[in-house]
Amino acid sequence: MPSTLTLMPVPAKIQPGAGQLVIDQLFTVSVAGAKDSRLDSGVPRFLDQLSRQTGMPVNNLMADSAKAALVIHVASGGRKVQELGEDESYTLEVTSSRATLTAATPLGALHGLQTFLQLVEPTPAGFAVPVLTIRDEPRFAWRGLLIDVCRHFIPLDVMKRNLDGMAALKLNVLHWHLSDDEGFRVESKKLPKLHGLGSEGQYYTQAEIREFVAYARDRGIRVVPEFEMPGHSRSIVVGYPELASQPGPYPAGRVARDATALDVTQEKTYKFLDQLIGEMAGLFPDAYFHIGGDEVDDKPWNSNPKIQEFIRMHGMKDNRDLQAYFNQRLEKIVGKHGKIMMGWDEILHPDLPKTVVVQSWRGQESLAAAAKQGYRGLLSNGYYLDLMWPTARHYDVDPMSGAAATLPPEEAKRILGGEACMWSEYVTPETIDSRIWPRLAAIAERFWSPQDVKDPKSMYQRLDEVSWRLGWLGLTHESNYVPMLRRLAGGEDIRALRVLADAVEPTKDYTRSEVFPQPPVKRVPMNLLADAARPESTVARRFDELIGNYIESGYKDSAAEAQIRAWLVKWQGNHANLKPLLERSFLLTEDQPLSEDLATLSAAGLQVLDAVGKNQPLPEAWRVEQMAIVERSMKPRANLLIMVAPSIQRLIEAASPHPTNHP
Amino acid sequence: MPSTLTLMPVPAKIQPGAGQLVIDQLFTVSVAGAKDSRLDSGVPRFLDQLSRQTGMPVNNLMADSAKAALVIHVASGGRKVQELGEDESYTLEVTSSRATLTAATPLGALHGLQTFLQLVEPTPAGFAVPVLTIRDEPRFAWRGLLIDVCRHFIPLDVMKRNLDGMAALKLNVLHWHLSDDEGFRVESKKLPKLHGLGSEGQYYTQAEIREFVAYARDRGIRVVPEFEMPGHSRSIVVGYPELASQPGPYPAGRVARDATALDVTQEKTYKFLDQLIGEMAGLFPDAYFHIGGDEVDDKPWNSNPKIQEFIRMHGMKDNRDLQAYFNQRLEKIVGKHGKIMMGWDEILHPDLPKTVVVQSWRGQESLAAAAKQGYRGLLSNGYYLDLMWPTARHYDVDPMSGAAATLPPEEAKRILGGEACMWSEYVTPETIDSRIWPRLAAIAERFWSPQDVKDPKSMYQRLDEVSWRLGWLGLTHESNYVPMLRRLAGGEDIRALRVLADAVEPTKDYTRSEVFPQPPVKRVPMNLLADAARPESTVARRFDELIGNYIESGYKDSAAEAQIRAWLVKWQGNHANLKPLLERSFLLTEDQPLSEDLATLSAAGLQVLDAVGKNQPLPEAWRVEQMAIVERSMKPRANLLIMVAPSIQRLIEAASPHPTNHP
Repeated sequence: MPSTLTLMPVPAKIQPGAGQLVIDQLFTVSVAGAKDSRLDSGVPRFLDQLSRQTGMPVNNLMADSAKAALVIHVASGGRKVQELGEDESYTLEVTSSRATLTAATPLGALHGLQTFLQLVEPTPAGFAVPVLTIRDEPRFAWRGLLIDVCRHFIPLDVMKRNLDGMAALKLNVLHWHLSDDEGFRVESKKLPKLHGLGSEGQYYTQAEIREFVAYARDRGIRVVPEFEMPGHSRSIVVGYPELASQPGPYPAGRVARDATALDVTQEKTYKFLDQLIGEMAGLFPDAYFHIGGDEVDDKPWNSNPKIQEFIRMHGMKDNRDLQAYFNQRLEKIVGKHGKIMMGWDEILHPDLPKTVVVQSWRGQESLAAAAKQGYRGLLSNGYYLDLMWPTARHYDVDPMSGAAATLPPEEAKRILGGEACMWSEYVTPETIDSRIWPRLAAIAERFWSPQDVKDPKSMYQRLDEVSWRLGWLGLTHESNYVPMLRRLAGGEDIRALRVLADAVEPTKDYTRSEVFPQPPVKRVPMNLLADAARPESTVARRFDELIGNYIESGYKDSAAEAQIRAWLVKWQGNHANLKPLLERSFLLTEDQPLSEDLATLSAAGLQVLDAVGKNQPLPEAWRVEQMAIVERSMKPRANLLIMVAPSIQRLIEAASPHPTNHP
Repeated sequence: MPSTLTLMPVPAKIQPGAGQLVIDQLFTVSVAGAKDSRLDSGVPRFLDQLSRQTGMPVNNLMADSAKAALVIHVASGGRKVQELGEDESYTLEVTSSRATLTAATPLGALHGLQTFLQLVEPTPAGFAVPVLTIRDEPRFAWRGLLIDVCRHFIPLDVMKRNLDGMAALKLNVLHWHLSDDEGFRVESKKLPKLHGLGSEGQYYTQAEIREFVAYARDRGIRVVPEFEMPGHSRSIVVGYPELASQPGPYPAGRVARDATALDVTQEKTYKFLDQLIGEMAGLFPDAYFHIGGDEVDDKPWNSNPKIQEFIRMHGMKDNRDLQAYFNQRLEKIVGKHGKIMMGWDEILHPDLPKTVVVQSWRGQESLAAAAKQGYRGLLSNGYYLDLMWPTARHYDVDPMSGAAATLPPEEAKRILGGEACMWSEYVTPETIDSRIWPRLAAIAERFWSPQDVKDPKSMYQRLDEVSWRLGWLGLTHESNYVPMLRRLAGGEDIRALRVLADAVEPTKDYTRSEVFPQPPVKRVPMNLLADAARPESTVARRFDELIGNYIESGYKDSAAEAQIRAWLVKWQGNHANLKPLLERSFLLTEDQPLSEDLATLSAAGLQVLDAVGKNQPLPEAWRVEQMAIVERSMKPRANLLIMVAPSIQRLIEAASPHPTNHP
């Protein structure tokens, strides 16, 4: 791909040309070929988006396709309910006089319009799109994002802007995690105690669900609902304790509490689930229905003698066999209501029909094993956004790598794609966009683009551009940063706080320590520096590149050296500027040691630069002393990490080689 | 007022105390006294706002007022339709254990809650409000903002967030400029060609109007509609050309076109206006109804012989007499529909009843003259936000100054207050917030606070804080800045562009040059640097303070000197960084000379600093040469001004005194 383009995901094939098509206010669009409501709404939405992005009102739909600057031609109207594996390919041909977008279905056309939007740039001659031909199609048919709305409820407007972001990145499945211990988030007319007692008033009405599903369909996105069973089910038994393995009552909401499991030995549980699934199957038109099925805790089943008796009576070995029994019965209920059952790794059992789809939070091994047994699967391991990994780490994960890489074609094709997961223990409507974006864009590229598109440098270059452009959709991952810092500071002047915030990241994996306030409150505030800080610090990433360049140059790259020095000087002096603020705002008190250590580390870094400049190696004692500071600086504090610490460590280690070098 | 508080507008009386009331998640609120729907919605809205501002979910309404941390007591429920002059006073007492808000009406309580929100700050012990007692009431009963939705249509969501901003600043009148040459923005069921042909499809439905009026009422804001007549009326005659003074047809929208005036000599015009006003009077419950009446152009009336014959026949002198005749008849129609007529200066005529309210775009002289004749009036002269004046200039304008200052009390009390005006020739939904805010906050203080509250330094200190806090209401005056710069740059790295953008302002008064593109388009893009740049540059304001301090210190303030130098070095070097961008994006091409001159000016400033440092006066020839650059730099280009140019001029002039000094 020409390096000047900022397309993401990278298309399957690009044929660059010479010249450009200028987009002015008289830019016209025409739709030819098959009619479809998704084009009827999608093309004006494209024009709105183009207007917003350029600040130039453009709104010229025309009937005469012979004259339009952009002609969209779709061969057929596509399926009534969007299907897995529908043709999503498109061809976009741009000449200096016009553009033609051709697709087999409206899905392909929608994707092509997103590509077109990414191509529009200001040039000396006006806004323009370069002359080129793109032939594009996805690598995987299932490209999803899971959003957990149970741990924290996510309102519909936030969900919708995230659908807009997904559509911009050509993702096509929203996996809606709608029930879990902490909440049941859908209005049930048949079983009203589900949302009535299990949601603390935070749920979507059925009308809202329908509206949301239609909104997603308009953007080429399927909505797959998930209702967790038999574990992760406390919100169900809040209103219906008779279904639980242990007597109630069960509290609603986010509370520290033992695991809950449905009593799957009772017939009334199946009657209940038949009702629940029947009602929800009618609400969600998609062919797939996710029943969760992960992490069923042994405790509730073990401590119920009736259940253990049932296991013995039916010749089962253990609780796992009981879950398999449950899943078989569940699959029949799901099937009876016209749906294909999906679940997490744990549902995998040879007694289940091969139609079942397995979603793997465990990894490619598990996925390959399922494929070998004839099951279709999706990868989610490696794509958990709540782990706060850097983008490149997610980007590096391929559904077809590891054990999956060696599958024969017949089995390999059972791997449908993947889903990123946004578990919501530590996100609120204010912070969720910044935990999803821009990192999800790189995962979307992994699911769409050819397997050999994997250069992290190119990815980051394009990601930096895609990130701010996503702001036009109303996503707040960039715009909420400064306001959150100002809240922490309680004032307008956040210069020093921002220097610190830019250099840190929230701790990784499941290491966040949660303090449940006393007396207990329903919702714990997410207003700390750990909530404002980005999952991946751009400053730290770029600083590490500088350090790399500097060391690799044998300390001769003076431009890199000057930039490194400028950063270190800034960080070294920052603590003095920030201290009064850290002392004034209780929200920042715990961040003091981080700010102090950043200054100390930077001072050490500057000593290295000075020593290198004077060609005077630093003594071993000094190195040992600094390493103690480095070590302390790399530990999580206040749920944060100083992300420039490893780079400064590299600088110190490279420039002060100690006698006992590693072999 | 204690300087640590950031209250705006400054309350009438503050009695500071010692200590603070901590606001934690268990903070409770109780409403005692009279019931009112505005409190029913206003108190939860207050809690929402508190939650957003603190990032700490707080939602504890309690019935038992003896136990609540904040008790709100309102004596009476207030009028069914909010009235001019209703009691808006409140008393807020905060002790270290609880707060009490007492008010005569819900209006006072709403104001008091806004004051409370402004008092909440993070402290070492948590969020807290200082112990104090505030007794507050407005200086003027009419504190308004006019928004013109004709030149550019402003959608309801943008209007609503601006109402939220108004409520935060205790403004109480939204003057809605709903018809003008360029558009008629309200659905009319009786005269459907008004919005049908006169709005280009951009209008509010009656249901939307009702919803908006209710939204405003909930926030203590009256909505006064304005329908312009007999001038500024092209959008009316687009659909009803038979009412015009000249034969049609008349085009809709924003087009270069001669002025239009209704033919006020025909009876059918009055029948029509009776229908129009009757319908609109039913839609807007407020007692006041604005009929515009300004700038009636002579041309349409002069060039219609029938109209000139009418003037002679009725013994009138001229067109002004004809307008007076029209206004008298209009006043009867407005009165018949239960409303009090308002209009701009030009309606003033001794034949009109004294109930009429005059809004002055001409100034205090005009206002005082009206008051002397017995008319009530409002000041708008000096508060036109579209003139792009610095905040201090608006802040300095007092409705009771000039000719109004010497009015006897009976006449003085006829001056009801004032209204800021946001005319929308050069604003879009994207930019309007940045033209209104934060400057309106200072005007709001002028209308509310005691007359002697007028220190611009204190105002700016508080304004800087109020500005970002307004962002919690969804106002985009801060958040749209970076995205608009990125659009101009077509990329993520806007560092150099931002340096330039921070140092410039849009041209002042009515000097913006508008280019109507060929072929014509309906809406001209507002996507230039002149649209992104703030009306008042904070950087320029602070830089000018530094220059002032430096000069006043006799060039001895080395801290100021260092900061001045740092800015000049940055600006001097910026053009080289920015040039590639200016050449790449057509939107920035015209800004090249500004960027160049900023660099040149800064170089001159640095020469001054160096000369002062070495105690070597700069030669007169040098000064003359620099002054030529300064002069060029102060001229508007690309609809922008280099706002730091006058400060650099001061520096050059002060440090290089020329032989012929002014006496």
